[in-house]
Amino acid sequence: MLEEVKSTNITWHAGDITREERERRNGYKSVVIWFTGLSGSGKSTLAHAVERALYDLGCHTFVLDGDNIRHGLNKNLGFSPADREENIRRIGEVAKLFTDAGIIAMTAFISPYRADRDKARAVAGDGRFIEVYVKCSVAVCEQRDVKGLYKKARAGLVPEFTGISAPYEEPLHAELIVDTAVEGVDECMARVLGVLRERGIIG
Amino acid sequence: MLEEVKSTNITWHAGDITREERERRNGYKSVVIWFTGLSGSGKSTLAHAVERALYDLGCHTFVLDGDNIRHGLNKNLGFSPADREENIRRIGEVAKLFTDAGIIAMTAFISPYRADRDKARAVAGDGRFIEVYVKCSVAVCEQRDVKGLYKKARAGLVPEFTGISAPYEEPLHAELIVDTAVEGVDECMARVLGVLRERGIIG
Repeated sequence: MLEEVKSTNITWHAGDITREERERRNGYKSVVIWFTGLSGSGKSTLAHAVERALYDLGCHTFVLDGDNIRHGLNKNLGFSPADREENIRRIGEVAKLFTDAGIIAMTAFISPYRADRDKARAVAGDGRFIEVYVKCSVAVCEQRDVKGLYKKARAGLVPEFTGISAPYEEPLHAELIVDTAVEGVDECMARVLGVLRERGIIG
Repeated sequence: MLEEVKSTNITWHAGDITREERERRNGYKSVVIWFTGLSGSGKSTLAHAVERALYDLGCHTFVLDGDNIRHGLNKNLGFSPADREENIRRIGEVAKLFTDAGIIAMTAFISPYRADRDKARAVAGDGRFIEVYVKCSVAVCEQRDVKGLYKKARAGLVPEFTGISAPYEEPLHAELIVDTAVEGVDECMARVLGVLRERGIIG
């Protein structure tokens, strides 16, 4: 890049826009908010609620979730342990790119393995990864069974289903734990915003 | 998603923010500007010049290039035809996500295969893909040889090097062709902005 610029016009390389420059203009810090938890725990609902609140505060935001990742970027991945790892790796890298662009990136995936989440944390960088454990017991998620997946999993029709036939590793050092069995979405959303304020991410 | 919301609070789903809502607030359309051309043609330099100009106009922008993709999202890909295809596929999908977030996404990759670029165009959607062919002869790129890669390729040290030992398929219907052998970066940048204005992407 630097040499390439030399070959044309040295002033051009100065055009590169850093995350810091974007953050000064935006008035907030761009971070990854990583929602993790069982299927049906409410990750995506909460992420979209937080996004709306941040958007209305003037922030630029984006939610990465199954709807926009599984049928696009990660459509060539299945649900084996290796594919789940690659799934989360790509999501972590894309979330990081979004923060480089000055966006508050939220991810809403089960992301059951601690090691995979910790890699995403390392990619995001120091102080830029807010892990939110959307806690909810298998019993309650199964009672909700919003997509009918628990029923299918119990019938053996969905192999390697997290919480039933595949493990979920709880976060050890999440920045926030919300319990959607007892807290409403409003309350959970307010608690996420509280963490962002405490950490000086938003004003 | 919809059912998940039903299980908690139906008003939450309304929180989803569409690209159209973002565009109304931003005052510009989010598109992919896809720079394609040989190594050393000036794609990345031009993309960063366009980014600076758009940023100074108040747009939210991001450049995807080798610097931020090859060592991150696509670090598990090499340079075989299959890996090049997957490389460009992922970049096309990520660029689309950026436009969904209201960002003008620029990509600066050789992207030598027409079919791969056309897939990225299809992913971006109608009227949201501006293909800029950064034209420059192999002779001129080789003379610049900013990274010393042509020299290595001629010595047989870089297999499948586009323009030397691997094909480059010129765009048939690029929205813009710039010739960096005769036009300066200023001039090329102004022509890209001209195309964006003509198409009502920026005001």
